[in-house]
Amino acid sequence: MGINVRVLLILLLLGIGLIFYIGARTSPIIVFVFSICIISFLFSIYLTKWVLAKDEGPPEMVQISDAIRDGAEGFFRTQYGTISKMAFLLALVIFCIYMFRSTTPQQEASAQLALPSPIIMGWRVRLWVQDPGVTSAYITVAAFLLGALCSGIAGYVGMWVSVRANVRVSSAARRSAREALQIAVRAGAFSAMVVVGMAVIGIAILYSTFYVWLGVDLPGSMKVTDLPLLLVGYGFGASFVALFAQLGGGIFTKAADVGADLVGKVEQGIPEDDPRNPAVIADLVGDNVGDCAARGADLFESIAAEIISAMILGGTMAQRCKIEGKYYPSGFILFPLVVHSFDLVISSVGILSIRGTRDSGSKSPIEDPMAILQKGYSVTIVLAVLTFGLSTRWLLYTERAPSAWFNFALCGLVGIIMAYAFVWITKYYTDYKHEPVRTLALSSSTGHGTNIIAGVSLGLESTALPVLVISIAIVSSFWLGQTSGLVDEDGNPTGGLFGTAVATMGMLSTAAYVLTMDMFGPIADNAGGIVEMSQQPESVREITDLLDAVGNTTKATTKGFAIGSAGLASFLLFSAYMDEVAAFAREPFKQVDIAIPEVFVGGLLGSMLIYLFSSWACSAVGRTAQEVVNEVRRQFIERPGIMDYKEKPDYGRCVAIVASAALREMIKPGVLAIVSPIAVGLLFRILGYYTGHPLLGAKVVASMLMFGTVSGILMALFLNTAGGAWDNAKKYIETGALGGKGSDCHKAAVTGDTVGDPFKDTAGPSLHVLIKMLATITLVMAPVFL
Amino acid sequence: MGINVRVLLILLLLGIGLIFYIGARTSPIIVFVFSICIISFLFSIYLTKWVLAKDEGPPEMVQISDAIRDGAEGFFRTQYGTISKMAFLLALVIFCIYMFRSTTPQQEASAQLALPSPIIMGWRVRLWVQDPGVTSAYITVAAFLLGALCSGIAGYVGMWVSVRANVRVSSAARRSAREALQIAVRAGAFSAMVVVGMAVIGIAILYSTFYVWLGVDLPGSMKVTDLPLLLVGYGFGASFVALFAQLGGGIFTKAADVGADLVGKVEQGIPEDDPRNPAVIADLVGDNVGDCAARGADLFESIAAEIISAMILGGTMAQRCKIEGKYYPSGFILFPLVVHSFDLVISSVGILSIRGTRDSGSKSPIEDPMAILQKGYSVTIVLAVLTFGLSTRWLLYTERAPSAWFNFALCGLVGIIMAYAFVWITKYYTDYKHEPVRTLALSSSTGHGTNIIAGVSLGLESTALPVLVISIAIVSSFWLGQTSGLVDEDGNPTGGLFGTAVATMGMLSTAAYVLTMDMFGPIADNAGGIVEMSQQPESVREITDLLDAVGNTTKATTKGFAIGSAGLASFLLFSAYMDEVAAFAREPFKQVDIAIPEVFVGGLLGSMLIYLFSSWACSAVGRTAQEVVNEVRRQFIERPGIMDYKEKPDYGRCVAIVASAALREMIKPGVLAIVSPIAVGLLFRILGYYTGHPLLGAKVVASMLMFGTVSGILMALFLNTAGGAWDNAKKYIETGALGGKGSDCHKAAVTGDTVGDPFKDTAGPSLHVLIKMLATITLVMAPVFL
Repeated sequence: MGINVRVLLILLLLGIGLIFYIGARTSPIIVFVFSICIISFLFSIYLTKWVLAKDEGPPEMVQISDAIRDGAEGFFRTQYGTISKMAFLLALVIFCIYMFRSTTPQQEASAQLALPSPIIMGWRVRLWVQDPGVTSAYITVAAFLLGALCSGIAGYVGMWVSVRANVRVSSAARRSAREALQIAVRAGAFSAMVVVGMAVIGIAILYSTFYVWLGVDLPGSMKVTDLPLLLVGYGFGASFVALFAQLGGGIFTKAADVGADLVGKVEQGIPEDDPRNPAVIADLVGDNVGDCAARGADLFESIAAEIISAMILGGTMAQRCKIEGKYYPSGFILFPLVVHSFDLVISSVGILSIRGTRDSGSKSPIEDPMAILQKGYSVTIVLAVLTFGLSTRWLLYTERAPSAWFNFALCGLVGIIMAYAFVWITKYYTDYKHEPVRTLALSSSTGHGTNIIAGVSLGLESTALPVLVISIAIVSSFWLGQTSGLVDEDGNPTGGLFGTAVATMGMLSTAAYVLTMDMFGPIADNAGGIVEMSQQPESVREITDLLDAVGNTTKATTKGFAIGSAGLASFLLFSAYMDEVAAFAREPFKQVDIAIPEVFVGGLLGSMLIYLFSSWACSAVGRTAQEVVNEVRRQFIERPGIMDYKEKPDYGRCVAIVASAALREMIKPGVLAIVSPIAVGLLFRILGYYTGHPLLGAKVVASMLMFGTVSGILMALFLNTAGGAWDNAKKYIETGALGGKGSDCHKAAVTGDTVGDPFKDTAGPSLHVLIKMLATITLVMAPVFL
Repeated sequence: MGINVRVLLILLLLGIGLIFYIGARTSPIIVFVFSICIISFLFSIYLTKWVLAKDEGPPEMVQISDAIRDGAEGFFRTQYGTISKMAFLLALVIFCIYMFRSTTPQQEASAQLALPSPIIMGWRVRLWVQDPGVTSAYITVAAFLLGALCSGIAGYVGMWVSVRANVRVSSAARRSAREALQIAVRAGAFSAMVVVGMAVIGIAILYSTFYVWLGVDLPGSMKVTDLPLLLVGYGFGASFVALFAQLGGGIFTKAADVGADLVGKVEQGIPEDDPRNPAVIADLVGDNVGDCAARGADLFESIAAEIISAMILGGTMAQRCKIEGKYYPSGFILFPLVVHSFDLVISSVGILSIRGTRDSGSKSPIEDPMAILQKGYSVTIVLAVLTFGLSTRWLLYTERAPSAWFNFALCGLVGIIMAYAFVWITKYYTDYKHEPVRTLALSSSTGHGTNIIAGVSLGLESTALPVLVISIAIVSSFWLGQTSGLVDEDGNPTGGLFGTAVATMGMLSTAAYVLTMDMFGPIADNAGGIVEMSQQPESVREITDLLDAVGNTTKATTKGFAIGSAGLASFLLFSAYMDEVAAFAREPFKQVDIAIPEVFVGGLLGSMLIYLFSSWACSAVGRTAQEVVNEVRRQFIERPGIMDYKEKPDYGRCVAIVASAALREMIKPGVLAIVSPIAVGLLFRILGYYTGHPLLGAKVVASMLMFGTVSGILMALFLNTAGGAWDNAKKYIETGALGGKGSDCHKAAVTGDTVGDPFKDTAGPSLHVLIKMLATITLVMAPVFL
């Protein structure tokens, strides 16, 4: 890059100075949040330096790693090019919608949007247009673009480190399992810290900028409790990018994987990641763009959406309870940011607790890496309970309800316990140490058909316990909040929803550590691929295989964690939407009555959206995989020397095929997800207008959101668990059970694994994003439905 | 039987005389309904005589047919023995619940249940206990048991005729395709007439008995508009039996089918229905108990539940609009019974329009049986439009809203069009003449895995259009009803829900003909099996194969039809439940607000119930099929002579294994479906009691019902369509496409077919029943949740 580093540094320092200045004018809490985020960015720079200082191993490894890096970065550039074009287009649409809205008489009368002239550093600045609608359009679009940009950075960072760490892990695996584990963990931790930190600091910057700019809390200006509603654009921007990142990445990784397996493993009988397979580099590239980049964007948007909705609910509650004073309303609103600041701190401690021991004889009996990771997790969880209690006491204590903070601390505990329960349930259904996967493996012995039937039933059954856990968590945290002693003017208890919000925060209070464990998986997987392709000795392969297996489990549990938090948050986001509609419409919007036929129809359509989206995501993988199969078959026929290592396969062609197919295929489901809630809302708004039902559009969208969320949670649980279980049933048979590798039973299990691939890595994770995107899109588009 | 036929005849005539007497005292409409039902019973007796007069063919056919009959009747006896035990147990529970309820002060004060002493033939009869709670308990339990009994008879009749007609169809196939078709159609028509006729006459008898017994409309007695609420027990009895019949039958038929295919087709490479396969008789028995008996019970309960809910809504509306006069309130209530009476008439015409032509050269070019069946359907549809208009003009014309009947006629048209649309959509997704199944077949060429992925995506995608059609139908029929001019005392339009009810009736107005086409399928399938097993010449097999293929399509379209009507009716049943709760609680119950956390949790649990139920239904088939596989493998090993036709396989053992497994496996999902809504309702009732939320239990159950219905519709559509598409993709390849029989592509397609079997014939159809059973159980148990 041609820019002078020194100039950049000065600009950076100036920027930091500016945000601290703005933060200081907003609230000391914001200053605290900024400080923690800056420190954790410094910590993540330390982690990268540590990882990059490791050696890259012999040239044959470097060569493979370079090929992976080129493929991943090439795809990333094209993909994000497409996504950013769409984002700008959508930004334009949003701008027009908000501008258009501003011409309606209601909005001009609306007090909330009558923003004052901005005040920057004590000077009142006149905007070129003083129309409140225009200001609101600026704010929403700016937040949207910032959210999209940050999400893009989060994805890029995840991939950037993973394509550099993979070869270093492979190289370290030649020396010691522990060192390899540590590199993979720290590389994962780097992107986890950046993702979480950026979500937090982005929201904090937006919040304080708006606070200062709009002169919040000055006489005649907007109230601080209404401020979080302006942030929804950020969440939507993040969801928007995450949806396409997850779809494109998910289709890429699984199409390459399925295609490579179908010809390589099934037809030719060569092992996974064999250098003779022309699709193997595409498969390894897929791990990076699908699992690293996409998961980074996914978790980024999860955290952002959940923070924003909790802030909205906190603001609404503070307003209803008339909590006044220097700290208190801000305390309720900024609580989620503080929780995630502590998350950064305690996760760092957890990560550092995983140490490279005395590094003795490298090939000594290998310690169970899962145990090491879980020890770190336990450390983090214990700290989370402590810091969570601390945060509630600090920010949620009010004299009007002196014991409220304790109730909210208990809500947080509910969330933390729920996180644990989810991890346990996912393990039970996907780990071959337990009954379900063993039964699944056994059913493979009677053929492909019974294997699929058993896997589908397992997946469907696995939805039951998580739903029970979510149900208990929602009801109990709502009850804890309701009995917290916070009451509105009429003496009605009002803390219920905020209690659920706090439980969600509790569940996410170890997000950075969980994300670290998740990012660890694809890095280990890639390292294994590099080891196999560079034909390292068996003992090295053993180490990376072990890490890979652990990575599979952590990946599955993270998905459980993500869907659990989405389940808990869904109710939150839904309530935030209702608050938003009430604020816009300036009339109470408290009920979504499914006994109204249009509202019921909205629910039907919402559930249907989930099915259609899942269908298109799965069939995209199927179609692309067929292209890969045909290409790989062609190469094997046209270059017979490949099988004897005499000819090199054309890896690049497979990468190119998958990349262009993934870009093409991600559009249809993505556009479906974005267009359908808007279309349904508009349609029923018009219908409501002509049949004299006010707010009909908003109600139908609410019901669509709610039914869609419930169906989405169930469908994602089904897809993730079935996929994970098939994968591990195959792995269980590969350990030698029921005939072992190459038996008919194994072949049936491979079929299950192939089917599970798009389930668990394309459709399932995309549904996580979809659920939250539905919520954020309805939040942003709410004015359109009124 | 030792009973004198003459005595029986006299008793029958006396009974008919009695019901006509009671009917005459109730309403001339009831007399009309009775007359039509009696005539159609006579018509169905004519049809049986016609079918039974046909020859049974050579002894080898008779022998096979006898084995099938013995197996089917044996299983039926055991199964219904178990079901009736459970029914009596449940009746006892219901009785206790209603008795227990009667001790609460509200109910004693409740005017509605303070029934007067019954008046029979003008004499006032004193009951031994004059407590209103006890009367209500008697009524509900009696209705429940009658519903259960009628459902059992409906199932038995379906099976009785099919095990007798199959061999006659096989025999006729040796002579002419047309004759074989006609026998199968008339046999199907016999059970269709009995099933529909019994649903109608059962409800009519109950209605008029209660009417006379309780002295309805006499001063101080209950109003006729409240009468339909007393019938819900009948619907629940029917649903209860249908659920277990469908589960047991579905598990039986598909476990036998999958087991037989996995060893016979896949491992040994012998054709379907080959006499050497030890599981082949079990498979043929399964077609009778699963497809005939269970489908009869299923459609019986569909019609019963939908008639009753439409009657409840008609009653509520008539009451709200204060429609008075000799005919009018009864007209609205009895409308569904009249629609189905006409259904019997027009379907008979449609059936008779399928004639055995000149019966020329039997082996002349075969006419397309599908075209013949569809011609009959077109005749029926045209007549349905006419008679529907007639019925609305006759019964729904009131002077207060002179054009209302026309709006309702249009609602009926919406329903009829919807039925057509559903049949078309199902055909599009499951017939190999269209794109989707061809794409699915193509995806089999890249292996088992891609076949399954493509089938799952196809199934998920196929939910979209039906949901759109249901949505449009609900909104438009509601709107037509709302603008019909019927208003309540305050001038608010009230006809909306009744409009939806009329649309459902419109959809079901050709039920008897559709059921005939459905019943035709398994009879043809069985006939094909008998032809194959008795080793008839190829030309005979060709004819039955053709009939079998048509049967597959009609089976699939009937399922589409069933789920469409369930979808439309779901909203109806839900509203009936709300009316019921309002009537019991004596306070308005108009809203189910999903913004309340407990209500949302109810929705989560309802959706989850669908997943868990589907899981258990599928895994039951998987498990039982594994038992069959092991038994068949054992027989092939222990009796090596089987393959050379030297030894006879032990068919009986397979039948016994499947029968006992089906009985065992049907309990778990069945009990889940019955217990969970009751448990959830009770739990939240108690929770609501302690947290001061009145009606919480009822609200949570309403939401559970609603979300469960939506999920159930989608899941059933997915399972049915995916299963049907896999089946036909395999059939398409068997026509010689993509490599034809025996190719790798065909093997992959067989895997898909195996997976689809429990989807489309066990879990899917059981979900139809489950959806409606959820509605009827909540209707009956409503007092428990208050």
